[in-house]
Amino acid sequence: MSRPIITLTTDFGLQDHFTGVMKGVILGIEPRASIVDITHEVPKFDTMAAAFSIAETWRWFPEKTIHVIVIDPGVGSSRRPILVQASGHFFIAPDNGLLSPIYATQKTRVRHIENRKLFLNPISRTFHGRDVFAPSAAHLAKGVPPARFGKPIQDFVRIDFPRPQEIGNRIWSGIVLHVDYFGNLITNLPAAEFEGVATGSFELVIEAQKITRFAQSYSDGQPGELLLVTGSSGYLEVATNQSSAASKLRSKAGAPVKLTIY
Amino acid sequence: MSRPIITLTTDFGLQDHFTGVMKGVILGIEPRASIVDITHEVPKFDTMAAAFSIAETWRWFPEKTIHVIVIDPGVGSSRRPILVQASGHFFIAPDNGLLSPIYATQKTRVRHIENRKLFLNPISRTFHGRDVFAPSAAHLAKGVPPARFGKPIQDFVRIDFPRPQEIGNRIWSGIVLHVDYFGNLITNLPAAEFEGVATGSFELVIEAQKITRFAQSYSDGQPGELLLVTGSSGYLEVATNQSSAASKLRSKAGAPVKLTIY
Amino acid sequence: MSRPIITLTTDFGLQDHFTGVMKGVILGIEPRASIVDITHEVPKFDTMAAAFSIAETWRWFPEKTIHVIVIDPGVGSSRRPILVQASGHFFIAPDNGLLSPIYATQKTRVRHIENRKLFLNPISRTFHGRDVFAPSAAHLAKGVPPARFGKPIQDFVRIDFPRPQEIGNRIWSGIVLHVDYFGNLITNLPAAEFEGVATGSFELVIEAQKITRFAQSYSDGQPGELLLVTGSSGYLEVATNQSSAASKLRSKAGAPVKLTIY
Repeated sequence: MSRPIITLTTDFGLQDHFTGVMKGVILGIEPRASIVDITHEVPKFDTMAAAFSIAETWRWFPEKTIHVIVIDPGVGSSRRPILVQASGHFFIAPDNGLLSPIYATQKTRVRHIENRKLFLNPISRTFHGRDVFAPSAAHLAKGVPPARFGKPIQDFVRIDFPRPQEIGNRIWSGIVLHVDYFGNLITNLPAAEFEGVATGSFELVIEAQKITRFAQSYSDGQPGELLLVTGSSGYLEVATNQSSAASKLRSKAGAPVKLTIY
Repeated sequence: MSRPIITLTTDFGLQDHFTGVMKGVILGIEPRASIVDITHEVPKFDTMAAAFSIAETWRWFPEKTIHVIVIDPGVGSSRRPILVQASGHFFIAPDNGLLSPIYATQKTRVRHIENRKLFLNPISRTFHGRDVFAPSAAHLAKGVPPARFGKPIQDFVRIDFPRPQEIGNRIWSGIVLHVDYFGNLITNLPAAEFEGVATGSFELVIEAQKITRFAQSYSDGQPGELLLVTGSSGYLEVATNQSSAASKLRSKAGAPVKLTIY
Repeated sequence: MSRPIITLTTDFGLQDHFTGVMKGVILGIEPRASIVDITHEVPKFDTMAAAFSIAETWRWFPEKTIHVIVIDPGVGSSRRPILVQASGHFFIAPDNGLLSPIYATQKTRVRHIENRKLFLNPISRTFHGRDVFAPSAAHLAKGVPPARFGKPIQDFVRIDFPRPQEIGNRIWSGIVLHVDYFGNLITNLPAAEFEGVATGSFELVIEAQKITRFAQSYSDGQPGELLLVTGSSGYLEVATNQSSAASKLRSKAGAPVKLTIY
């Protein structure tokens, strides 16, 4: 029987004991758990960035994986902890919209986690990663059925994710969803919907600069040349070969882009 | 039979191969070990910060966990490696005082690790994490009894941890023990000893600013408002909602605080 | 039967989902894998730095360990993925020279990984860590024999690593191979070849400063004093006690050093 997998995504950083403590709580309840860090450097309190991260991650794990995401500016308030089932995976998170990409693309069942027997006791008002989310995930990994966590709810929080808008004849506006560690600017333009760019007959405007070169891979670019590539997330990406497009363009997440296909 | 857990806490950072090599040494001796990173970003050479980290961490792990802490400015000198048993847990560290919070709160047995059969051979003078601490932990995980590590000692190094001082009628002085990744200032004032603050009839002075608002959770604060909260460590904490109290106050670990309860 | 070990060394950083996704792919194929992070902070695109990291790491793991190293500026180009067998270990990486220290010191068999059944399908042009290297490593861990990956090749890419040069009578020139997190400057001068320095009759010049003090351990140094020590990698290292020699000297990887032994 294979070990249950629990992934952790937080904005807790790496300098403190916070993520280590969550792992201790999990292993105390379910010693067989295989715990995988996704990232602990989601920008602080940024539920949109957390949503991007989990949306890009979950499907690469095997079914039955339990994904714990704690970007939780409302910790200790009345915001609810939730358990979401989708496509054979489990998600445990605060109900603040960070799972919206899952709701938007998958059939989901969302439960309000109300069974306090699954939490630590007492519960702090400042660290539900330790007191609520980690123990809930461990109990689920250990075999507690989802129905024991709490009742299904419908009024869970949704964030509208920005979709490209057709603003003219073969002209679309979009935004930068995420800037990765390499400085690649990942837009919200799905490559599969804009296959025309591969012919090279296009113009993408970002930060008042025009990009007209489509490349198959980063290494096709000349030093400093701005490229459009199909990123690993399936979105069109603004990149440069071996340097940061974000620095070159002084751009960042949220920046508008405009794509024209000729 | 569940896998033995070994936690790692160091000041080695994440850019080098150091922590990876320690894990290789451990898995070479005890392949069943489940290795958990607490943090590798304890401030360099800061035994007090290491002491705070391990004090906040160990009790959240199950019994029999082996905690390895390598903040070791004296590596290669005559400072001793020690094995400490406390409350069903094991601690392996240099004898430089970083385990003082364990000594102060738990019944402990401290041994000088002298059995060179438990070390790598040869031993460098610059990386005992690899050559001494990792293999000792792995042998312990594999079942070597503590008595085989070396004789009990009494003259281990203790650091006095700062305790709040009553300096007047219902007036206490304390310090900031730790600034976390979010910029929360964790004081050495145990919340359980100062429950009066919850009534709101108090004043806490830090960096010449007065704080008079107690909040149950971070999210109760207005933007920029300085709050006193009960932190997840059980100490009173100076915080602001979704921003850094440390930056706002230009404060840091070691800063004095003065609490008056009316 | 012990779990197969897969180590990961990349320049992907820790803020994105990239390394988490690689782990998901691995665990989906071989759930028993024990995945160990070496570092994800190799300087971006720096194959020389990657070579240093893996050279210092691999031998500390048990035999049969699978080392995956993805520093891959040529991702999506015609550069080949390779599987290298050496000294009972396995290495999976792009063929860009980062395994040169293994070639230089071990008997190796190098294969071009061509069997697309071992990859994900489809394969992106921008993330072979996920689509090529992770699944290859997982299939190897699961028991697919090396011969099934592809044919042996001889024309794999080699980088010449800088060796010390004798430039005069008992005078050698070398370079700084790596600056570690503590600011220690690790030279390419093997301590075993320059044992004479331990007598103290030597002079090492770096950044126009002369170092004449050899110390057994960092803690033998006075505050701010520049020392030569035998580092844990077996190379001579320029260090200071509890501070950064690199900052003090304003030096970095690649800087020349000159050693004279009297």
